[in-house]
Amino acid sequence: MARETTRPGAAPRNYPKGERRRAQIIEAALAAFGQVGYRNASMVQLAAACGVSRAGLLHHFPTKESLLAAVLEERDRQDGEHFLESGALSQDGLAYFAGMLRLVAHNQANPLIVSLFAVLSSEATATDHPARPYFVERYARTRAEMQSAVDDLARRGLLRPHVDASRLAADLVAFIDGLQVQWLLSPDLIDMPDHLRTVLRSFIDAELP
Amino acid sequence: MARETTRPGAAPRNYPKGERRRAQIIEAALAAFGQVGYRNASMVQLAAACGVSRAGLLHHFPTKESLLAAVLEERDRQDGEHFLESGALSQDGLAYFAGMLRLVAHNQANPLIVSLFAVLSSEATATDHPARPYFVERYARTRAEMQSAVDDLARRGLLRPHVDASRLAADLVAFIDGLQVQWLLSPDLIDMPDHLRTVLRSFIDAELP
Repeated sequence: MARETTRPGAAPRNYPKGERRRAQIIEAALAAFGQVGYRNASMVQLAAACGVSRAGLLHHFPTKESLLAAVLEERDRQDGEHFLESGALSQDGLAYFAGMLRLVAHNQANPLIVSLFAVLSSEATATDHPARPYFVERYARTRAEMQSAVDDLARRGLLRPHVDASRLAADLVAFIDGLQVQWLLSPDLIDMPDHLRTVLRSFIDAELP
Repeated sequence: MARETTRPGAAPRNYPKGERRRAQIIEAALAAFGQVGYRNASMVQLAAACGVSRAGLLHHFPTKESLLAAVLEERDRQDGEHFLESGALSQDGLAYFAGMLRLVAHNQANPLIVSLFAVLSSEATATDHPARPYFVERYARTRAEMQSAVDDLARRGLLRPHVDASRLAADLVAFIDGLQVQWLLSPDLIDMPDHLRTVLRSFIDAELP
């Protein structure tokens, strides 16, 4: 749990003990869900990993589903923080994709965050998975946001010929997701920001800021 | 197990009983691994799903790892069969990607095969997962095969300007993988062969056969 005290955004030391404990549990669950999946992670093992009793864990998270929701929220918070810092939420397509590049570079330094997303998003494709609605909604939102950025580039004439702007958002999201799996399997062969930069260059007729 | 008797390639009715049972177990495991993941699937539940005792299951597959290996082999056999049928293993880049389009269309009719791949490939990114070496090797092979097809297109001058041929294989594999997750989550919104055709058109300056 060394990251908990050094990572920016983690609960600082002067937070109430309960808050610190809660943040610790979320960190441990984030790692566990990303490694063995949500279904396979056990509350007993999670409690042991955080040094709390099962009752102590249930005090903070009465069900495994509530812990899952907190983990997904924490992941989105980290993502959003990083994306906002880079000013990428503007409707400026070039700024958006420059921010996306920075986010992917940030993720490449955080394998836990990447494997959490890769493992949970595919596990959640099962119709009875508690995170399925979350991922359906999240992908719809991500596609819509990215499509606004693509539309801005199209309006400004910055897309290369033969690019179908209407589906580019879904295609780029797919590419980024799939690349994560190849990177997790072969981190020495795949450099995610490099690949993304090359792919963006094949679609966008401009230098990214 | 209705598919077992109708799917081409499944053990036909006149196979010895042991072979039929083995094929049944592999089909059930393929569905289970794709739905709840390898780690979460239990041998006891798998045995029940095939109507065999746990001892009967262990007779065919003494370990869960050996069953996993058989499932991955079966998946590759189905893939390869379909890809070979379409003559796509040639070094003809256009024929290769036409075959890839047919394979993706075939997969879109087989959600079990798609979710098996999506769930196992991301679960297998964990360093201690028994299928990790399989997926590391499989991705290396897929990238190398696809890169040969890309190189053929480059030689024939069929790649559009601004396309970086040296990494296109990894990028297209990533795109196809990522699209599977979006399709599994929102099958009414995402049409995988349509998306692949559009993406290929943005890279390749030729009609696919």
